Amino acid sequence: MEVDSAQEQPTGVCPHFHAAIELIGKRWTGAILSALIEGPQRFGELAGAVPGMSDRLLSRRLRELESEGLVGRQVEAGSPVRVTYSLTEAGAELGPAISELKSWAKRWRAE
Amino acid sequence: MEVDSAQEQPTGVCPHFHAAIELIGKRWTGAILSALIEGPQRFGELAGAVPGMSDRLLSRRLRELESEGLVGRQVEAGSPVRVTYSLTEAGAELGPAISELKSWAKRWRAE
Repeated sequence: MEVDSAQEQPTGVCPHFHAAIELIGKRWTGAILSALIEGPQRFGELAGAVPGMSDRLLSRRLRELESEGLVGRQVEAGSPVRVTYSLTEAGAELGPAISELKSWAKRWRAE
Repeated sequence: MEVDSAQEQPTGVCPHFHAAIELIGKRWTGAILSALIEGPQRFGELAGAVPGMSDRLLSRRLRELESEGLVGRQVEAGSPVRVTYSLTEAGAELGPAISELKSWAKRWRAE
C-alpha cells in the first residue's frame, strides 16, 4: 500500500481516502450502496434495483461490502430462509458523500 | 414499492449517479481529483502527489478527465512548454462529495 510513501510526502493524497473512493467506485458497488441507503433489502430487490448486474457479481460485491464492514446480512429462519442486507453504521455514514455525488450527477450529467 | 410504468427502471439506481461514482472511483482518478482540488498543478506535481501511479497511467487518466469535462489543460508557450492541469467548474463542484468522503475515510478507516 501507499501508506509509507504518503507519510513521507506531506502533499500526497490521503491513502485512506484513496482506498475509500476506489472501494465505493468499484463496478456496481456505488449502485448497491445507493440502493441500500433506501433501506434494508433482500437479494432479489437489490438485483431489481441495479439492473444489468448478474446475480453472481451482486453476490460477490455483497460479500466484499460485508468484509469491508459496510453491509450486514440478516438471516431469518424459515422455508425458504429469508436473507436481508442492510448498511452498517459505517455504510450508512457514506450517505452524505453519496448524496453530494447524486446532486452533482443531477446537475452535471442529467441534461 | 411504487412502480411507474412510464420509466424504464422505476426502482432502479439513477444511471447518472451510477456513471459518476464509477468515474471518480476508477483506479487513481479519485486521487488525481483530490490533488487538483488543492489547485492547478503541473504534470510532475501531480505525479508527486499520487505516488505509485505510472506517468503513462497519469497521462491516460488526465485525458479521460479532460474528455469528461472535469479537468482542463493550459499550455504556456516557452521552452520547455509548460502544461498545467486544473479542475473545470464541473470538476470543482465534486469538491463537497470528495470532502464528505475524506471525512468518512478519516473517521472509519484511519484508526
